[in-house]
Amino acid sequence: MRLYDPDPGAARKVGEVLDNARRAWGRLTLMPLPSEGRFELVGSVEEAVGGADFIQESAPEREDLKRDLFARAARAGGPDVVFASSTSGLLPSRLQLDMAHPDRLVVGHPFNPVYLLPLVEVCGGMQTAPWAMEAAESVYRAVGMSPLRVRKEIPGFIADRLLEALWREALWLVNDDIATTAEVDDAIRLGPGLRWSFMGTFLIYRMAGGEAGMRHFMSQFGPTLKWPWSKLTDVPELTDALLDKISAQSDEQSGGKSVRELEQFRDDCLVAVLQGLRTHGGAAGLALQEHERALFDTAHPTVMHEGDDLSLPLRLHRMRIPPDWVDYNGHMTESRYVQVMSDATDAFIRYVGVDGDYLARGGAYFTAESHLGFLKQVRAEEMVEVSTLVLGCDEKKLHLYHRLMRLDGDIPLAEAESMLLHVDTESGRATPAAPEVLRRIGLVADAHAHLPKPERAGRRIGDRRP
Amino acid sequence: MRLYDPDPGAARKVGEVLDNARRAWGRLTLMPLPSEGRFELVGSVEEAVGGADFIQESAPEREDLKRDLFARAARAGGPDVVFASSTSGLLPSRLQLDMAHPDRLVVGHPFNPVYLLPLVEVCGGMQTAPWAMEAAESVYRAVGMSPLRVRKEIPGFIADRLLEALWREALWLVNDDIATTAEVDDAIRLGPGLRWSFMGTFLIYRMAGGEAGMRHFMSQFGPTLKWPWSKLTDVPELTDALLDKISAQSDEQSGGKSVRELEQFRDDCLVAVLQGLRTHGGAAGLALQEHERALFDTAHPTVMHEGDDLSLPLRLHRMRIPPDWVDYNGHMTESRYVQVMSDATDAFIRYVGVDGDYLARGGAYFTAESHLGFLKQVRAEEMVEVSTLVLGCDEKKLHLYHRLMRLDGDIPLAEAESMLLHVDTESGRATPAAPEVLRRIGLVADAHAHLPKPERAGRRIGDRRP
Repeated sequence: MRLYDPDPGAARKVGEVLDNARRAWGRLTLMPLPSEGRFELVGSVEEAVGGADFIQESAPEREDLKRDLFARAARAGGPDVVFASSTSGLLPSRLQLDMAHPDRLVVGHPFNPVYLLPLVEVCGGMQTAPWAMEAAESVYRAVGMSPLRVRKEIPGFIADRLLEALWREALWLVNDDIATTAEVDDAIRLGPGLRWSFMGTFLIYRMAGGEAGMRHFMSQFGPTLKWPWSKLTDVPELTDALLDKISAQSDEQSGGKSVRELEQFRDDCLVAVLQGLRTHGGAAGLALQEHERALFDTAHPTVMHEGDDLSLPLRLHRMRIPPDWVDYNGHMTESRYVQVMSDATDAFIRYVGVDGDYLARGGAYFTAESHLGFLKQVRAEEMVEVSTLVLGCDEKKLHLYHRLMRLDGDIPLAEAESMLLHVDTESGRATPAAPEVLRRIGLVADAHAHLPKPERAGRRIGDRRP
Repeated sequence: MRLYDPDPGAARKVGEVLDNARRAWGRLTLMPLPSEGRFELVGSVEEAVGGADFIQESAPEREDLKRDLFARAARAGGPDVVFASSTSGLLPSRLQLDMAHPDRLVVGHPFNPVYLLPLVEVCGGMQTAPWAMEAAESVYRAVGMSPLRVRKEIPGFIADRLLEALWREALWLVNDDIATTAEVDDAIRLGPGLRWSFMGTFLIYRMAGGEAGMRHFMSQFGPTLKWPWSKLTDVPELTDALLDKISAQSDEQSGGKSVRELEQFRDDCLVAVLQGLRTHGGAAGLALQEHERALFDTAHPTVMHEGDDLSLPLRLHRMRIPPDWVDYNGHMTESRYVQVMSDATDAFIRYVGVDGDYLARGGAYFTAESHLGFLKQVRAEEMVEVSTLVLGCDEKKLHLYHRLMRLDGDIPLAEAESMLLHVDTESGRATPAAPEVLRRIGLVADAHAHLPKPERAGRRIGDRRP
């Protein structure tokens, strides 16, 4: 990949953006990514274009500048090269005016951060060839983007018209001292912005029409178009023809889903978005964090106390499956089953007294061997719990049996039988655990000795299912 | 809680919304929720108001109707009761005109679904008492909402002005056949809507200004306010005073964070939102799902060719251990051993012909059972490789033995014996794999049958070390 950018800071800036992109994709997916290829900063448009199949222009929003770049690029490019402009709203019919091959110019308008937002508006000009549109779209699809074909060439295309309308209203709010910039942002990100992240505006309003649907919504909220609820007062006339069009398109868009189905889809998406934002303390996620803290009034006991009931398997670890633990099949990836189990092991050894001080003194339990049964699929956001049974122990060994279950069920989702060794982390050798830890493990082991041995304990791979 | 609603279907509709709310909160948080209290549908405003501390009015957007309801409610209410209107934009100064206690009327404008979106705009009228505003805000906070105080009373407050501007522009786009309702929604939810869910508009544009910040953005994009990028053409003059105000407010809002810090926060939030949406197949989440399926093929490019040497264990997966896979002991954490092994399984099934198309048609191999031996510690940045042996197979089962080794060594670091089942992902049942996949597995199995069986294959937990 070759980049021409006359900015003397270009190399540093592009490097930083690439670092951001690597960081984001490292977190976004469990899939190994294709190799990055090579990136080269070059000294002229001509060098950048030479030998390339596809050109993306992202110069400042000045028509004269972009026209000049495309004229030069078209002269330097090969016979099959496609030229795409990142313009947010300039007309492709004008950008292609000075080009030797105007048929190959398209608008391909992406959104920041381009490495995470799938949208790219693809719009042709009067001289653009259909094959060039298709070629650009397949380039975008190959990197995971979602091209949106713009049917008619207008300034601002689709997204920037919506952005611009909202932006102009936002400027008025600040100009008129109705709200500060932060308050405008809060009015979006704590409310309607959360819905916009997966539904847009028409689908949301369809639900606002309740069971009667889009036409009901339009007739109920139609009059507000005449009200001074926006500085944008030049509004379309709600003719029967427009109402019919919107209703028909909205019916088609909702794919026959009922309002209740749409509501549940909306809620599932919102819950997922709020939980994701909670992880990073983003806006509504911060509000959720704070509310949860207010709700917090019980803590699970994590350390053994005299009088604890040890007569049943211990339930020391529960959690909700995070959405990023889920693979392309839609269920929890294999290694995360193991993580839940090893977190349950950690909870158990904490329970018997292996705390931060103990670890700092050089004692630790390491898993030497595990046998895992993956019995049921676990999906994102399910609440799960692990029950832990002590099958045996001596001064160095600890034999545990974990069972993963839904919080509200008793069907095992997975089972893990593990042998742990107590190790001196300095020497790496197995050593006896501390007497107080051994005493507590012994209490649990004695109590658990009366429980039935799990059916699947002691299995070899390939044994028939019990 | 008492509700007055003259709609004969009210009980059913409210019941359905409460069901949705219970369902959503059951997924949203691990925290124990307070008890729900009792809900009662009553026959008049007076019955609903009697004895209540707080009234929320959510009647249709007709000023005469709301004024009448508040006049009646004020006569029936106790001395300390606070009245809140859910109006999206009617003026509280007008809603309180006919009330016996106009000082206790506030607007408390929530957003659907009210049980998930934290935003509630709180706005007083000319006669509203400050204590009533505070009382309403504390009611909202107690249920986890985030009140946004509206400084000046204007029609549409803050959020609905923004919503209305975007909505009017959206109506033009459909009216003018630039886009369908679904395309307008895609232009939001695949792009800017994802950012709006946690950042709003000013903070996003601050980043668009790059290292030079908000003032640079305004000066760069200021001219577009004069361009026909929206039907909203009555725009505020970008005076020095307005520019100063926006820059100062934006500086304060960003809390001293650099553009790079804001970008990383933005990306973390976006990754979390995208992952959440992937779980439910919502808009951009669906695009991510599809891209991951395509990556599956490029991630595992090695496909069996006629003439491949199958006489030794296959070496299809190698990688460098990332630094964040290492735990407090300085070596790779348990679950990552399993991830390396399951990546090797993916590489193997890709090798025998299970590609993205195959997955899309509903066939997949799932691990049913694994036996893991953790033999040596693995440190960050080590290059490792997995060798894979086929121990057995039939039309549904696949028995693999993986050995993890350093790239430059042959001492096993870990071993994993796994039993996989071929599954129809629609039904979740085991089904025979496709003939071509079985043929290729058979070729490997036949070749590997001549190799010695690994010493540790077929172990039970607790067997002595070989």
